[in-house]
Amino acid sequence: MSLLVTGSIGIDTVEAPCGMVEDALGGSSVYFAYAASFFSPVRFVGVVGEDCPPDFLKPLADRGNIDLAGLDVRKGSKTFRWHGKYHEDVNQRDTVSVELNVLGEAGPRIPQEFRDSKYVFLANTHPALQMELLAQLESASLVVADTMDIWIENDRELLVDLLARIDGLVLNDSEALQLTGKSNIVRAGIECSQMVRRFVVVKKGEHGSLLFINGNGKVYPIPGYPAEKVVDPTGAGDSFAGGMMGYIAENDIADYQTLHRAIAYGTIVASIELEDFSLNRFMEIDRGDIDARFAEFKELTAF
Amino acid sequence: MSLLVTGSIGIDTVEAPCGMVEDALGGSSVYFAYAASFFSPVRFVGVVGEDCPPDFLKPLADRGNIDLAGLDVRKGSKTFRWHGKYHEDVNQRDTVSVELNVLGEAGPRIPQEFRDSKYVFLANTHPALQMELLAQLESASLVVADTMDIWIENDRELLVDLLARIDGLVLNDSEALQLTGKSNIVRAGIECSQMVRRFVVVKKGEHGSLLFINGNGKVYPIPGYPAEKVVDPTGAGDSFAGGMMGYIAENDIADYQTLHRAIAYGTIVASIELEDFSLNRFMEIDRGDIDARFAEFKELTAF
Repeated sequence: MSLLVTGSIGIDTVEAPCGMVEDALGGSSVYFAYAASFFSPVRFVGVVGEDCPPDFLKPLADRGNIDLAGLDVRKGSKTFRWHGKYHEDVNQRDTVSVELNVLGEAGPRIPQEFRDSKYVFLANTHPALQMELLAQLESASLVVADTMDIWIENDRELLVDLLARIDGLVLNDSEALQLTGKSNIVRAGIECSQMVRRFVVVKKGEHGSLLFINGNGKVYPIPGYPAEKVVDPTGAGDSFAGGMMGYIAENDIADYQTLHRAIAYGTIVASIELEDFSLNRFMEIDRGDIDARFAEFKELTAF
Repeated sequence: MSLLVTGSIGIDTVEAPCGMVEDALGGSSVYFAYAASFFSPVRFVGVVGEDCPPDFLKPLADRGNIDLAGLDVRKGSKTFRWHGKYHEDVNQRDTVSVELNVLGEAGPRIPQEFRDSKYVFLANTHPALQMELLAQLESASLVVADTMDIWIENDRELLVDLLARIDGLVLNDSEALQLTGKSNIVRAGIECSQMVRRFVVVKKGEHGSLLFINGNGKVYPIPGYPAEKVVDPTGAGDSFAGGMMGYIAENDIADYQTLHRAIAYGTIVASIELEDFSLNRFMEIDRGDIDARFAEFKELTAF
């Protein structure tokens, strides 16, 4: 079933204890789209500047099931750039530099042929832009968004407004605490879930995630996949969301059982993504590799 | 089957955001014993001073299946005292004061009638004392120990010596990183598991735990129980170990499947313990309450 993603496309430079990459393909919609494409066709919406190398998005184009009709190559603009440096403990990182460039301009338009999308992921950006994009996607039956600390801090009202209009939210544990002012993550998650229509996924990095359902008061914990090899965690959160939404779109159902399993799939996809820089690991694997690790994860977590 | 615990008995003062207790019953062997007694008879070994109020250990005595023959009330000595203060985020705490008192003296002796114990838990103390206690328990078929940062820092050789002679180790994630010098918790856990005979459980507080089996290279993640109400986390780690070892002793088998389920039981027992100060919550519940929450946890974590 149709799955649409809107988000950033980045030219990333990443330094990590195991090595580095310069000017590599990155950005939230890129990681999301590749991850989701293992499960379902993806409609891709994003903006780059005219400095973007012509073949930069080739890994997405080569997938065969990622429709790039929503890619806007904007004349006179420059592509978003990010440079990060991970510590020896790769759970810690510093941002060396950010050039917002085209991301600081007007957002993309959703192409007409994408407007009937049923499943939608609004990757992290200003909630006003997320609202604008949402308004162009009136047929969607499941809209999930990501957000981040600066919008919670500076644009809380707008964000709360957006949340009331969407079905699901994916955010980090620290962001859930910040959004609710709680000190207990379970209470925070329950409160967050009441701000959206259906569910919230609180991500805890290597410690996994918690699924909160609005209304039933239940909390579903999913442990992290025990990753021995972490080269570059950049994009892991977006790959998680991509795996999750891809699985939902593939099954064309979003009941709680499917949602729970979708989060486990997201966990597995993210655990593979972070084993190398950029999309390198994704480009080496297929759905069978994901299913094999999923089966192993299921066995290791069943008691 | 016979389960023996050695560890501290403390007169605890605890300040937490929800309230405080003064001079309450605490200590590693106390929490362990009470938690384990829901599953199996327990043989209790520990030392107090003559200042210890006569009824101080009555909650343990009243259980009916905790044998206090190993309780040493030492003339002229004073009982261990601990005073801790939790932050608004109860994952953070400060030690206000510690009086080692009798814990700084010679360790307890294992009573003759306890020396045939099959399952043994050596709660955290100096590895030299753990070694002494181990030497008195030659019939044990499964010995598990706890440890802490100061022994890893100051008595590493002794500790490594001890580990080679025991079956299992339970420790915190930060301690596993410290013991191995790794920055990845999975690699650290695998290396720790190779230092003992059979297995290591790495505890991650609210994020659950990881079970590492020496030899098979597998890592079993167990999420934390999503606890909405955390009044006082004191004793949660020892209650976890008590639930785990109690379940193993009850089933009189320690294969990996039992071990995995034992850790889930430990998780549940700890999640109940921290809902009130001291042993207060334990004194309100029975095995049925534990089994009910276990069943709920199993359902919430199965995907």
